[in-house]
Amino acid sequence: MANLNELAQIGATPEGGVTRLAFSEADVAGRLWFEQKVKAAGLRYEMDGAGNQFGILPAFSPTKKLLLCGSHLDTVPNGGKYDGALGTLSALEVVQTIKEANLDLPYDLGVVNFTDEEGSVMSLFGSHAVAGQLTADHFTNLRSGTVDLVAGMARLGITQESALAATIDPDTLVGFVEIHIEQGVRLENAGISIGIVTSIVGIRSAWLTFGGEAAHAGAKPMADRRDAMWGATAFVQRAKALVESQFHPGVCNFGQLFVEPGAFNIVPAKVKLALEYRHGTEPQMDDMRTALFDLAQTIATEYGLTLQVEEVMGCISAPSDEKVVQVIEDSAEKLGLSSQRLISFAGHDTQSMAAITPSAMIFVPSVNGVSHHYAEYTKDADCVNGANVMLHTLLSDCWH
Amino acid sequence: MANLNELAQIGATPEGGVTRLAFSEADVAGRLWFEQKVKAAGLRYEMDGAGNQFGILPAFSPTKKLLLCGSHLDTVPNGGKYDGALGTLSALEVVQTIKEANLDLPYDLGVVNFTDEEGSVMSLFGSHAVAGQLTADHFTNLRSGTVDLVAGMARLGITQESALAATIDPDTLVGFVEIHIEQGVRLENAGISIGIVTSIVGIRSAWLTFGGEAAHAGAKPMADRRDAMWGATAFVQRAKALVESQFHPGVCNFGQLFVEPGAFNIVPAKVKLALEYRHGTEPQMDDMRTALFDLAQTIATEYGLTLQVEEVMGCISAPSDEKVVQVIEDSAEKLGLSSQRLISFAGHDTQSMAAITPSAMIFVPSVNGVSHHYAEYTKDADCVNGANVMLHTLLSDCWH
Repeated sequence: MANLNELAQIGATPEGGVTRLAFSEADVAGRLWFEQKVKAAGLRYEMDGAGNQFGILPAFSPTKKLLLCGSHLDTVPNGGKYDGALGTLSALEVVQTIKEANLDLPYDLGVVNFTDEEGSVMSLFGSHAVAGQLTADHFTNLRSGTVDLVAGMARLGITQESALAATIDPDTLVGFVEIHIEQGVRLENAGISIGIVTSIVGIRSAWLTFGGEAAHAGAKPMADRRDAMWGATAFVQRAKALVESQFHPGVCNFGQLFVEPGAFNIVPAKVKLALEYRHGTEPQMDDMRTALFDLAQTIATEYGLTLQVEEVMGCISAPSDEKVVQVIEDSAEKLGLSSQRLISFAGHDTQSMAAITPSAMIFVPSVNGVSHHYAEYTKDADCVNGANVMLHTLLSDCWH
Repeated sequence: MANLNELAQIGATPEGGVTRLAFSEADVAGRLWFEQKVKAAGLRYEMDGAGNQFGILPAFSPTKKLLLCGSHLDTVPNGGKYDGALGTLSALEVVQTIKEANLDLPYDLGVVNFTDEEGSVMSLFGSHAVAGQLTADHFTNLRSGTVDLVAGMARLGITQESALAATIDPDTLVGFVEIHIEQGVRLENAGISIGIVTSIVGIRSAWLTFGGEAAHAGAKPMADRRDAMWGATAFVQRAKALVESQFHPGVCNFGQLFVEPGAFNIVPAKVKLALEYRHGTEPQMDDMRTALFDLAQTIATEYGLTLQVEEVMGCISAPSDEKVVQVIEDSAEKLGLSSQRLISFAGHDTQSMAAITPSAMIFVPSVNGVSHHYAEYTKDADCVNGANVMLHTLLSDCWH
């Protein structure tokens, strides 16, 4: 908790939050602070070509096996002091504890701070690099432009080439565990101490364009209209009901909508609707996709409209490793802590790691679910619970 | 019919339509053509300060009473040859017929071509002026800017001052009758020859703003969201059903919608929806207003949203004079023509005139309801039927 509060001073905002955008001067200062903490803990400090920082506790007998834990230290603008930092510093605390207890494990333990999880320039930059999911294509069409990224990488002492070469051989990894605040209220509402992430959601998006016929909003009787707005709004209402009734806890969102021609007195000829949907596994995502697109087509037909579907973005769901989930569950039970399996609806570095090594996440409650906001808060006791569960998880013989 | 086809050559478009925007050179040419036709018919030609052109057939005994009929000669861009022109030239034909028959009536008969009905610069410019509804305020915030209007008025030989002074004393008027194409398919679908307009709809508009809470489109469970899009789309669906079930033949439209923040992955915090509704009488408009705004508030409450209503435009409904409606109905019957009472959902010069003198409109069928489009078409027989009904209507002793 002392480390968490100390780090929160770097990039502190007047509101009590933290601004430590990846690649910024504040990020560089935070990383230097972390390097010193890693070294002070007696761990071997390393940084890879993607700027990911590691603190390694070697096994007594030399091994090429590594069990990794950690998260990220960058934040969103005026974010909270828990998102990312809690996972990285809990991992440091746990590994330091194991070192101080002088325990011999059949694998190296590693604490990691992944670069730019939040995506100031590129979401999951560091964990994507480690997992071999970063490609040269990612360096085009950047949110912040290439100039900013090149300057930012120079600040960290890395380059595009070094980042692309920062992969870890999956054969050397035994697993990955990450602690994170829930960023929601499921645990808090249920009075549960520990969440065990069974999957990080897949995210898919599409533009649905309903096409009808522009008409005089007075002279054209309602019964004769082919109104694109009617189709789009029917879809929002019925897709919402469909997802709630058949795909819970999967979710959907309708975040944008454009109307043409767009006048009070003209029946809409075209409505373009932004659809996003999320669920825990790819088969569930496939089922949602079929159900939602079928519904859109049914509605288009009902209203005499055309339908165009343009799928624009995909992010594959990342199921956790059942063995690791079970170990976390057992560890919580051993500690007398209530736990609940749940899906993470936000992205995390674990989704990169889950593709190459057995992984899972430990969630701790967020007060009021506040997230990406300076008021983000998790009680000390919950932070400690999470770290204790991780300690027991790392010591499990499931990794042997 | 010959006159109609001749006039359609002025401003003819390659597609077979007509572009004769009010105040344009083509409009000036059309007006000159009309002046010559009026004079050739032996009527007294006059133009008032608003550019309205009149052809007067004086009663045998001098009188200060005037029964007016007509419409407008301006068009929308690439519009049809019937909208406006049919009403003006039918009136000319009918009055000329009465003159040729040497009939003595106890009032002067007048044919009128009203200026800028379509609103190139200002909708219903001429009829508003005659009815005393044009004010200095109308000359600010013009669609086409003041420069265009001043230049256009100069082309017609009028000024703002002369237009504002162009009122007709209601006491001198005995009534107003206008023929127009239906611009819809009600007559065509019912196989009816003559529509009798019982009212020109009132039009009211409002921006409805539903306010919720922006949230993470993944981490926020659907059950906990206050999604402005859900409220707005529920309103569209339920308002549509409400108007169709309880206010038919009144209509509503949702022509524009803006979302904030407007991203795939953010639950909408604010949705601003354009609502327009129309019905035949002010009491019906008041009922619709209450029902629609109550519904919006009910839905806002259901979804945990705030609601802001900003009423932005009103156009009062213009009921026809029952006596004139009856005379038109009787005239159609006398001629063996089927007729049907209906509401006009589009605006017409009659709505200005109905405020100052007993008025009604005669509709004739539009093939496929095409309107404001070069393909607009009404069969010759239907045009002739309309003119015959107007002839008998003008000769009724209801005006005495």
